[in-house]
Amino acid sequence: MNNQNSSKFIVIEGLEGAGKSSAISLVRDFIEKHTGTAPVCTREPGGTPLAERMRDLVKIADESDPLCDEAECLLLYAARAQLVANVIKPALSRGEWVLGDRHNLSSLAYQGGGRGLMDLVEVVSQATLGEFKPDLTIYLDIDPELGLSRAASRGELDRIEKQELDFFERARGTFLSFASKDDSIAVIDAGQTMAEVHKDILALLQSMEW
Amino acid sequence: MNNQNSSKFIVIEGLEGAGKSSAISLVRDFIEKHTGTAPVCTREPGGTPLAERMRDLVKIADESDPLCDEAECLLLYAARAQLVANVIKPALSRGEWVLGDRHNLSSLAYQGGGRGLMDLVEVVSQATLGEFKPDLTIYLDIDPELGLSRAASRGELDRIEKQELDFFERARGTFLSFASKDDSIAVIDAGQTMAEVHKDILALLQSMEW
Repeated sequence: MNNQNSSKFIVIEGLEGAGKSSAISLVRDFIEKHTGTAPVCTREPGGTPLAERMRDLVKIADESDPLCDEAECLLLYAARAQLVANVIKPALSRGEWVLGDRHNLSSLAYQGGGRGLMDLVEVVSQATLGEFKPDLTIYLDIDPELGLSRAASRGELDRIEKQELDFFERARGTFLSFASKDDSIAVIDAGQTMAEVHKDILALLQSMEW
Repeated sequence: MNNQNSSKFIVIEGLEGAGKSSAISLVRDFIEKHTGTAPVCTREPGGTPLAERMRDLVKIADESDPLCDEAECLLLYAARAQLVANVIKPALSRGEWVLGDRHNLSSLAYQGGGRGLMDLVEVVSQATLGEFKPDLTIYLDIDPELGLSRAASRGELDRIEKQELDFFERARGTFLSFASKDDSIAVIDAGQTMAEVHKDILALLQSMEW
């Protein structure tokens, strides 16, 4: 628990095309019914004016100055530090719930697992966030090939989404590995129909002792 | 030494108003005479298109979203990682000399000493740069009050330059502390006249076994 009062920090994680957006709507509605108030919704990377500008630097592809993996990782943690300091912690302190579209587990999976920079990611994560973590992370697990085909059907892919399939396989393996070691990370089978996925998420939310 | 050939990485460090710009001109001319070729000149934060955009995020002051100290530190290391990967190491590998306007010692002094984030800075520095470091760092030591009055006379101060005097006192103490422990950092008394400062720098360069 990150705070003394009853507000919670819930995060939705998953590969591209896993169905994060509709899951976020579902969880937002649940929180609003449960608490009587809409949660503060964040997205990462981004979520503050400066963090959104850092997001832009991660997403664009500059062929004359390709973003090196270490800089990508550090930019993501700069954006996260800014969001945690200026949005997430203040909201939790005010007693508001926070619902995050991605958080630290994405960096562990993509930069740690996908890029092979786990040592850097773990060190920077610990130095930046310390013991701060979500009360609940809902990881939507999907086969990368299926997820990417869904994401591609939505339109243009960004620099990260254009990585090789292997990259996403490694990221998925890392998501699952962290989930197996951490009771605060729940795995939902996102290869099911949307109705089944939503049923599982609601059952999970209703089973929690909030 | 960072490389097997004879090229060197030399960095000029110092507080605002210490006279870095004219020292850089002097050292650039020395290198050009010594090697027959102008060095690759870098500035930090910045020095690549993406790193310059990270510099902008550090320099601007957004009152609605003040940059937190941890994000500032991580942005600076993201920019440094990008510059080292895409400019400094490739130049040294080609046998070119590199002359830097600031490098890692500035983060140790400003973010580590000035902001009080030495644990974060040292961890991120080690994780990002490992054993990579300049062959020679010339630190231009000046009383912060004198340096800032010189800097202010040049025009508008940026977000960093507007810090309290105490911040620069702590940064100066950290510069001197690192210099006392590291033979590759030379301290030049920048409170002297420009002619005396330049004489000391030239004497230092001529004493080196290049």
